Amino acid sequence: MDRSSILARYLPILDWGRRYDRAALGSDMMAAVIVTIMLIPQSLAYALLAGLPPVVGLYASILPLAAYALLGTSRTLAVGPVAVISLMTASAAGSVAAPGTPEYLEAAIALAMLSGIMLAILGFIRAGFLANLLSHPVISGFITASGMLIATSQLRHILGIPGGGDNLPELVERTVSNIGTFNVSTIMVGVSSLVFLFWVRKGAKPALIRLGLKPGVADILAKAGPILAVVAAIFAVVFGELEERGVAVVGAIPSGLPPFAAPVVNLGLWSQLWLPALLISIIGFVESVSVAQTLAAKRRQRISPDQELLGLGASNIAAAFSGGYPVTGGFARSVVNFDAGARTPAAGAYTAVGIALASVFLTPLLFSLPVATLAATIIVAVLGLIDVKTPFHLWRYSKSDFSAHIATIAMTLAMGVEIGVITGVSTGLILYLWKASRPHAAVVGRVPGTEHYRNIDRHEVITWPHILSIRIDESLTFLNARWLEEYVLERMVEKPELRHVVLLCSAVNSIDASGLESLEAINHRLADAGISLHLSEVKGPVMDGLKRSGILEELHGKIFLSQDKAIAQLIQQADADPEGEDHWHARGLI
Amino acid sequence: MDRSSILARYLPILDWGRRYDRAALGSDMMAAVIVTIMLIPQSLAYALLAGLPPVVGLYASILPLAAYALLGTSRTLAVGPVAVISLMTASAAGSVAAPGTPEYLEAAIALAMLSGIMLAILGFIRAGFLANLLSHPVISGFITASGMLIATSQLRHILGIPGGGDNLPELVERTVSNIGTFNVSTIMVGVSSLVFLFWVRKGAKPALIRLGLKPGVADILAKAGPILAVVAAIFAVVFGELEERGVAVVGAIPSGLPPFAAPVVNLGLWSQLWLPALLISIIGFVESVSVAQTLAAKRRQRISPDQELLGLGASNIAAAFSGGYPVTGGFARSVVNFDAGARTPAAGAYTAVGIALASVFLTPLLFSLPVATLAATIIVAVLGLIDVKTPFHLWRYSKSDFSAHIATIAMTLAMGVEIGVITGVSTGLILYLWKASRPHAAVVGRVPGTEHYRNIDRHEVITWPHILSIRIDESLTFLNARWLEEYVLERMVEKPELRHVVLLCSAVNSIDASGLESLEAINHRLADAGISLHLSEVKGPVMDGLKRSGILEELHGKIFLSQDKAIAQLIQQADADPEGEDHWHARGLI
Repeated sequence: MDRSSILARYLPILDWGRRYDRAALGSDMMAAVIVTIMLIPQSLAYALLAGLPPVVGLYASILPLAAYALLGTSRTLAVGPVAVISLMTASAAGSVAAPGTPEYLEAAIALAMLSGIMLAILGFIRAGFLANLLSHPVISGFITASGMLIATSQLRHILGIPGGGDNLPELVERTVSNIGTFNVSTIMVGVSSLVFLFWVRKGAKPALIRLGLKPGVADILAKAGPILAVVAAIFAVVFGELEERGVAVVGAIPSGLPPFAAPVVNLGLWSQLWLPALLISIIGFVESVSVAQTLAAKRRQRISPDQELLGLGASNIAAAFSGGYPVTGGFARSVVNFDAGARTPAAGAYTAVGIALASVFLTPLLFSLPVATLAATIIVAVLGLIDVKTPFHLWRYSKSDFSAHIATIAMTLAMGVEIGVITGVSTGLILYLWKASRPHAAVVGRVPGTEHYRNIDRHEVITWPHILSIRIDESLTFLNARWLEEYVLERMVEKPELRHVVLLCSAVNSIDASGLESLEAINHRLADAGISLHLSEVKGPVMDGLKRSGILEELHGKIFLSQDKAIAQLIQQADADPEGEDHWHARGLI
Repeated sequence: MDRSSILARYLPILDWGRRYDRAALGSDMMAAVIVTIMLIPQSLAYALLAGLPPVVGLYASILPLAAYALLGTSRTLAVGPVAVISLMTASAAGSVAAPGTPEYLEAAIALAMLSGIMLAILGFIRAGFLANLLSHPVISGFITASGMLIATSQLRHILGIPGGGDNLPELVERTVSNIGTFNVSTIMVGVSSLVFLFWVRKGAKPALIRLGLKPGVADILAKAGPILAVVAAIFAVVFGELEERGVAVVGAIPSGLPPFAAPVVNLGLWSQLWLPALLISIIGFVESVSVAQTLAAKRRQRISPDQELLGLGASNIAAAFSGGYPVTGGFARSVVNFDAGARTPAAGAYTAVGIALASVFLTPLLFSLPVATLAATIIVAVLGLIDVKTPFHLWRYSKSDFSAHIATIAMTLAMGVEIGVITGVSTGLILYLWKASRPHAAVVGRVPGTEHYRNIDRHEVITWPHILSIRIDESLTFLNARWLEEYVLERMVEKPELRHVVLLCSAVNSIDASGLESLEAINHRLADAGISLHLSEVKGPVMDGLKRSGILEELHGKIFLSQDKAIAQLIQQADADPEGEDHWHARGLI
């Protein structure tokens, strides 16, 4: 690869930037305005969820977007703080410091830095496949459980009571034990915000259309609903003097651009946070790539998962350098960006400018924003994450996927996000390895009057007492090598007159070194019992490997092109061999 | 299952014990005598290797054998202390206490207890398949490296210098830095023991036969070689007054039966030792089952791996209750037991009696046994573990198996046994998952004049610009779900006139929930781009699952019985559809 194509690979902007024109500029600007309006309340709310000052949410929505615009491959992905990652940040930072302390903020920044470095390394070594370890049932279980945890954790802000916690028992116990200290004004603000936001989400657009607005305009106005709620809530607090009645507000937010500073390299802290940072990286990457792929396909575009790792890595490093916390591509905002007509990653850069302007000019106005309204924003957003249908689907479709799903939900709720993800991944892998270690195989016999061989348990077929034919429906690997030895030897013990074993290898796509050694062991063990091992219908590449390995010289039997040729020759041999005569009851059947 | 068959399953002795007769008794007694003679020096030596008093080796060779005789399924497996497990015990116990202290012995006993409990639990939940995670290249790499570590660790006893260490750099550095303190008398004893034992191993039997002995007698005498070396060395020490010349001896060994006492339940200690105990359990189980299977097959017998877990679990718990340390089935002694004619597990029980008699009557005689002779016994035994051919075989056969093998050897030598095993298992799994996440697939076209469809990169085939046929050579699972989405969407982007995608599913044995969701995602994404997704040659059980899942109602295409029917109908459709006319260049080819 020459230098310019390497550059083009790592900097997708060189591709789309060259063809950038006025039409694209217009579309991108329009989308940026809408996404900015949507992002301001969301960023504040998710920072609150992460246990951080609200302004940190704004900081995490400026430079990271610009970094992704440079390196990302999705035209429409909108990165920034998201609910699940905010919850994971709260859990990880909370394990090393108390919320509200400088150490807590330092931990959140360190998580962004570590996560950025990990994503970038995974991108450089092209290890995007590691994200495959998260199966769909595990991800959806994790997201459902996270949604439940998040919604429960925000209830206290609606009620105006203290609380907190990393898992459902903690959250419920602390909410219930403080429930007597509720604040009526806070509940009024919180509940009216909730009701309004639910209505905006479901009923606003049709209502506006009925009022005579064009669908496009109605849509944009509906999307501005959360910012309307924020403005209305601020007015209510200021003119209703609600702060004096005990309604918690956001308070002073430093205005101005984010601080640009290299994050402190604190190896002690990093060694405590590497595991949660890795989990944040993987969950964030999986979510982001799913969204990006869905949107790219709609326009017949494509994204490169390995380059996405670099883009998200750069975003998180940028977050760490500008006082932010871990970010990733969000589903809702990306869909809005896409629907609003964004055509290139430049839309993300314009959104960054929008948020930067907001953090310079709007922050003083947010002093009186009630926390209950932000909590309502979060609750409305995350209820969409809770998926009650999937367990039923999975139960019907696959019991093992269902188990992994339920285990992930149960452990996330009971023990928190980190143990939840780890449980999900390990349950999924163990079930997979368990299945892979017991592949399907069948003893086969000849369908009368044909050259076909079928499972003796399912079909009326001809077999011979001195020949055992086994079809293996799987590649031979270390996971099933031991199983294969047991399977063949058990079948052997069942047939006292056995003299030939034929393995029908038509479904064996590959044989690894362990599979090869098992074949050798089976060959020797059969030979010790006076039985020959034969192979039939071995695929070309597998045969090449067997030749290279030298096993063919040791084999006490032959390789046959087809199962039928194998049987024909082994029968002939028995006929020619007088000693074999009495082993030979089924001959009349042929 | 009724009560007696459950009992029969868990107590194999009820099966073979019923048919026990005088002939079996004679064979078993003979084998027991030979194995006892072999085990006495080995048990003392391996205890030394484990950093324990030599008598602990004898204790570990009494009750564990009796326990295995009750619960084990192999007729000929001989359990007891073995080299690799002794090394792992030394490494684990050395991490919590100094050799020679009561805490060190307590740790060794705790390892036996933990390992016994783990093996028994794995047996009850029938989780023997977990041992599959260790591929052959990883096991053989681990054993080769362990053999090198063990041989190097014993050199200092031959030289009579201080030393020790958990990995090769430590061992070499400490041996080299102390080399000046060598003891001439020790070297003479050590080197002559080494030379004699090597000769016994290779040349003794032929020499005795040349002297006119019958091969059987010569064989038994050759096997008694090590005990001869022990006797000769004791005489040399006593009559040559070698102890005064600085030759280290075993010293006072408490005589009598092992102490029978419940091991101390020390949860703090257990929590430090659970990981090494788990590794000891798995390595011990894998080794033992391989030996047991090899020997069982020679007599057309079979073993049950899950029941073997119970047998080995009981052996280790018995070891813990009688002051011993972790045990497993050993290769050399089992082969000797088999060759000597053992017919039932009773041979193991008789061996236990033999060792018990030895520990009551012989221990006073062992006072002057030189440590150098025991070290020579170990070195001669473990050199057989070092396998120099395997890396070359693996390099030729499979680069990924070779990598796992070399990584295991390198990490075991450099960092010790625990990190070595963990590296091996994780390298093997990651390579496997990496391959599983990128299965083989091909775009196919029709072989002219036939109904066959083949890879377009390998054959001259007919394709159509508006139809894309893809054959997937693997089941669809969470590991390759993301890959499948990317693969199909990338191929789609390459064909601008595309209107139909057909997935040829003849090699798809199963589809898990993630694979199903990927199919749904592909279906929707293709539909967004105006393309239909069809499936062909779906297997029966897979089809049942798809029906259950409800995906068939959503599919924007059809299910075809054969790939050829799919193509025929899609071509007809295009002919009927005037809009499709201009997409239609290849028609002339048909």
